[in-house]
Amino acid sequence: MRALEVTGLEGIGEVVVGSSIGQIIHDACSRLGLSLDSGDILVIAQKIVSKAEGRVTRLSEIVPSARAVELSVKLDKDPRLLEVILGESRRIIKMGRGVIIVETHHGFVCANGGVDLSNVGLDQVARLPQDPDGSARKIREEIRELTGVSPGVIISDSFGRPWRLGTTDVALGVAGLNPLRDDRGKTDSYGYELRASVEAIGDELASAASLMMGKRDRVPVALVRGLTAERGHGSARELLRPEEQDLFRGF
Amino acid sequence: MRALEVTGLEGIGEVVVGSSIGQIIHDACSRLGLSLDSGDILVIAQKIVSKAEGRVTRLSEIVPSARAVELSVKLDKDPRLLEVILGESRRIIKMGRGVIIVETHHGFVCANGGVDLSNVGLDQVARLPQDPDGSARKIREEIRELTGVSPGVIISDSFGRPWRLGTTDVALGVAGLNPLRDDRGKTDSYGYELRASVEAIGDELASAASLMMGKRDRVPVALVRGLTAERGHGSARELLRPEEQDLFRGF
Repeated sequence: MRALEVTGLEGIGEVVVGSSIGQIIHDACSRLGLSLDSGDILVIAQKIVSKAEGRVTRLSEIVPSARAVELSVKLDKDPRLLEVILGESRRIIKMGRGVIIVETHHGFVCANGGVDLSNVGLDQVARLPQDPDGSARKIREEIRELTGVSPGVIISDSFGRPWRLGTTDVALGVAGLNPLRDDRGKTDSYGYELRASVEAIGDELASAASLMMGKRDRVPVALVRGLTAERGHGSARELLRPEEQDLFRGF
Repeated sequence: MRALEVTGLEGIGEVVVGSSIGQIIHDACSRLGLSLDSGDILVIAQKIVSKAEGRVTRLSEIVPSARAVELSVKLDKDPRLLEVILGESRRIIKMGRGVIIVETHHGFVCANGGVDLSNVGLDQVARLPQDPDGSARKIREEIRELTGVSPGVIISDSFGRPWRLGTTDVALGVAGLNPLRDDRGKTDSYGYELRASVEAIGDELASAASLMMGKRDRVPVALVRGLTAERGHGSARELLRPEEQDLFRGF
């Protein structure tokens, strides 16, 4: 019987600039009696990676530009927050009703450019890691050095969506796995060719992990066991829809 | 230690019109030695529910309207398929590059109105269940009658997304659970009020289940254990973003 097991790693304390996430995960696993395997996948909340990488900024130190002030009036948001958001953004996709959807320098389309005020401390905001695939690779390498095994790693964040309420977690960075499961060209059991069957398993893994992570109760890492098929050397960039295939950009 | 366990129920055979999905799941669990519990959540692929409810149509029996023929030229798609899609749709949200995104009569925004050609037999298409919450409630009731326990039920389907490649599974219908986990108004551990923290756990459960389901290998049901907090009497309609809160409709 195929089973997937998702375990939230509890008891991870405050992460500060320079913390080794690999070491933190290794310690948490030891404490919980879990021994990592190369078939495992670790899903890590972006927030602690951003903290470890020093991507936290004090709003009180930000001087907003004229553009940020202008947008802050339109959106009824803090102009300093908008300054940080604009700094993360390649372009604005859509604005309205107090919401700003941008395309980040990485190519992610998300609200506020991924800049987040929760769980970082009052007056502080966290930006996304600069190179989430690189962050994932670094953590994977730290774990390999500590344990000798190389699990897959996903850096995840909670994104809103058009048309549906509530956030779902997605993969911002990956290491040691392929985030897409591509069944195109294969046929179903009736002989019909599966043309549309590309599954975003990187995002689905992030979502599955999110169910066991929780923002408030400080479980920023989940261990996923039982999905061994999709290992490889992919990039979370594969999850980004090219603009020319996208009906919801540039208009 | 908190753990979520997702098990694909293998060995479920062909589902035909009039099949009792509750009975099919009960049989599969018995065969696999799994005894259902009220704390469990069953995630069921829309496709088998549609088949059981007779929502499968032969394309050769469809006579396309002038409108369907017109769109078929624009989109380079079968006019009979477009006729079925239009019949499922309240309105067209966006068209282009061979893709048609519509809002279904239920309020789902998705490609092809959820009409699907895969895994139903050649020349046949499956439409979504007419009332997926009702389908979920019916299956839940069948299971209660057979086993005495009432697990949560989710009817799931694979949807594409703007901006990101690959499908992720979402909840079309639910019974016995709340599809949104609402943390708004609560504060994080720094005292910051979590304004944006509504998590679409119905969709995240569907995505987690999808990792163990697979379209081609015919595992149309997954059993999810270990998430007991979100039980209640919600509706998948709660997952639909009202138009007035949506930046990506009506333009």
